[in-house]
Amino acid sequence: MDFDRRIERVLLAAIEPLSSPASPPGLLAATQHAVFPGGARIRPRLCLAVASAYGDPAPEAADAAAAAVELIHCASLVHDDLPCFDDAPIRRGRPSVHRAFGEPIAVLAGDQLIVLAFEALARGAFHAMASGVTDARRAVRFFEVLGGGVGMPQGIIAGQAWESEAKVPLSAYRRAKTGALFEAAATLGALSAGQDGAAWGDLGQRIGEAYQVADDVLDLVGRPEDMGKPAGRDGALGRPNTALELGLSGTTRLLQRLIQDAVEAVPQCPRADDVRSWAVELGDRLLRVCRGPSAALPTVSSM
Amino acid sequence: MDFDRRIERVLLAAIEPLSSPASPPGLLAATQHAVFPGGARIRPRLCLAVASAYGDPAPEAADAAAAAVELIHCASLVHDDLPCFDDAPIRRGRPSVHRAFGEPIAVLAGDQLIVLAFEALARGAFHAMASGVTDARRAVRFFEVLGGGVGMPQGIIAGQAWESEAKVPLSAYRRAKTGALFEAAATLGALSAGQDGAAWGDLGQRIGEAYQVADDVLDLVGRPEDMGKPAGRDGALGRPNTALELGLSGTTRLLQRLIQDAVEAVPQCPRADDVRSWAVELGDRLLRVCRGPSAALPTVSSM
Repeated sequence: MDFDRRIERVLLAAIEPLSSPASPPGLLAATQHAVFPGGARIRPRLCLAVASAYGDPAPEAADAAAAAVELIHCASLVHDDLPCFDDAPIRRGRPSVHRAFGEPIAVLAGDQLIVLAFEALARGAFHAMASGVTDARRAVRFFEVLGGGVGMPQGIIAGQAWESEAKVPLSAYRRAKTGALFEAAATLGALSAGQDGAAWGDLGQRIGEAYQVADDVLDLVGRPEDMGKPAGRDGALGRPNTALELGLSGTTRLLQRLIQDAVEAVPQCPRADDVRSWAVELGDRLLRVCRGPSAALPTVSSM
Repeated sequence: MDFDRRIERVLLAAIEPLSSPASPPGLLAATQHAVFPGGARIRPRLCLAVASAYGDPAPEAADAAAAAVELIHCASLVHDDLPCFDDAPIRRGRPSVHRAFGEPIAVLAGDQLIVLAFEALARGAFHAMASGVTDARRAVRFFEVLGGGVGMPQGIIAGQAWESEAKVPLSAYRRAKTGALFEAAATLGALSAGQDGAAWGDLGQRIGEAYQVADDVLDLVGRPEDMGKPAGRDGALGRPNTALELGLSGTTRLLQRLIQDAVEAVPQCPRADDVRSWAVELGDRLLRVCRGPSAALPTVSSM
């Protein structure tokens, strides 16, 4: 399944209406900088993989949902890199948005990306209705699912907010910080194909956890010039890191189990084997990170 | 037209799902702090006033659209108060969100409010469809209109971003910074009643400009303890202020003209006189600000 071109095309289309002579140039450039060039685009890939499991009957809906998820992810990177959070100087091998454009523009660029995400999602939901794969009642679910993946109680914003609390429920923190948006991505893929979607949340969570574990390994052993971002941030910021807790071999075993769980979490659907293969392939790439990051870095960096 | 109770009720309903034991307590409290108690709630009032001009045939849709606009406004206050923008210590008579909860939580609370706004809007759009006042094609307009009022090229985020530019096109800046969200509020009111909405943008822009002018007067002559925020910020931050440019009597004349323009901008509709009376009443309140702020402050503060 090669979704690269679909994803870049739909992200370009989502951001294109901002390119007006009436737009403030700094914010426009910062918003583009936050989205292109991208990282692994793993969340929109997951979304499209799930839609394809049902034959992708409304591809424009799936594309728009995939774009929405990736735009939210880009927004979260911009805001999480801010001085008041990680103060990250580098992202995807280039200066982070606030380093390149200043802190005010970085706050606004993140806001703009959230707005764009919901505009894209709306187009997706209405494409799904127009193509007859869903009705109005189910179309509301697009928004509930993305809102749930982003906001409180258990979305990525909640995950980030736990870092400001004295007592952090570790498992809820991890599910929220990374897993929630993967869960939304998988569920939206199914919704875009006219399915209920709830059955796909588990796959999303497992893929998200596996990705987080690989990111923890990279943070520990990766080279900044390969990863496109600084290493050792978790330790420096006092954040939980699975690889620090379990060691490399323990982490490898955890990752293997998570990928196996992901494969088993694929629900019954016309092309379940395609999704299982996709998950195994992704797992192989992540496992290469644990064995020696440089082999897998070009695809896993900038998550 | 008394919309107070409708607006508070629907804002409470929008924010209620966040109140879960699973939510990080700081972010939850900060998000509530940003919305309650509110300011003048003028944007949702405008939205409901326009829906009522058509007999408010889908009140749940109008309520949800009104909530969406106010939640975006609250988000913009939280982010604009941040240290990297205005560094405002006080808002609506209480510590600003970042002063009360810290900067990371303030960034996240603003993000959460944008997400909540679009979730509310989705419910509004689908209520409008379910009640038969609109079809799927027109329902997409809800998102285009709110997205346009918020994002680039000419929404409030663009307005805020112009403050980071060396050369600022003053008229575009003003239209974007305040007018855009008022325009969206008016247009969404009409959409909620099954109308096209475009005819109402001018009214929104005029009301928004009038409000901005009154805010400029308050910034110049208001007492912080009455306004619920610091005075003299525009001068200190080098921002344009109409009252500084035109003086109090010139500003009063401008405000009178803007209200007259607003009254004339009310398009043909079944209850146009109600909206005109509403605009005149609002204008009287704003004019009292120019004559002596303390008379009007309880309703005009915390805009």
